[in-house]
Amino acid sequence: MAGMCVPAPPFPITSGRISLVCRVASVPEEQRCQCISVTSVFIPFKTISSVHLISPRPGCSRLQVIATLKNGRSVCLDSEARWVKVIIRVMMSKAND
Amino acid sequence: MAGMCVPAPPFPITSGRISLVCRVASVPEEQRCQCISVTSVFIPFKTISSVHLISPRPGCSRLQVIATLKNGRSVCLDSEARWVKVIIRVMMSKAND
Repeated sequence: MAGMCVPAPPFPITSGRISLVCRVASVPEEQRCQCISVTSVFIPFKTISSVHLISPRPGCSRLQVIATLKNGRSVCLDSEARWVKVIIRVMMSKAND
Repeated sequence: MAGMCVPAPPFPITSGRISLVCRVASVPEEQRCQCISVTSVFIPFKTISSVHLISPRPGCSRLQVIATLKNGRSVCLDSEARWVKVIIRVMMSKAND
C-alpha cells in the first residue's frame, strides 16, 4: 500500500529505535492491482479475445496484462514472459491484414 | 452484418433476376465493433492509463485498440499508426523495470 510515514509523536522510546507512525493512505479499490498472481503458462493465441494492458499507477506499481479468453474467463499474464510479448506483437501485426 | 442468404421462395420473378432472401443474423451488441472511428493523432504516453487490444471477431472484422486515458476518457486508436505500436512496445518494456 502506498503510505506516508512521519516520525512518531515524542513519547518514551523503549526500544531505542525511532518508531514511525505510518499514515497508510487507503488506496481506492480501482487503483489497486487487479492481478494478485500471474500465469506464465502458455495460452494459445486463438483462445484469446482481448488483452488489456494496464500501466503502473499509484495503487499498483507493476504493468498488468489481463487476457480475456473466448470462454469469458479473464487471466492475468506474466508481462515478462516471452510468449506474452509475442502474442501482443501478433495481435498488432494482424492490424495490417 | 454477418448474414446468410437463401434463394427466395418461388414466386413470379418480375425483374428476371433471382431474388435472395437474406436472413441477416443480428450480431449481438457486445460482438459488434466498439470503435466507429479511430484517431491517429498522437497521444502522449504519460496520459494513457491502459490500452485494450480486442482481436477481430465475428461481429467486428478488425483489431480494435482502445486507450483509456488518465482523465477517464476512452479513445479508439488507429492500430496501424506507428506511434500506437511504439506505445504498446514501451508499455511492455516497462514490465522489466
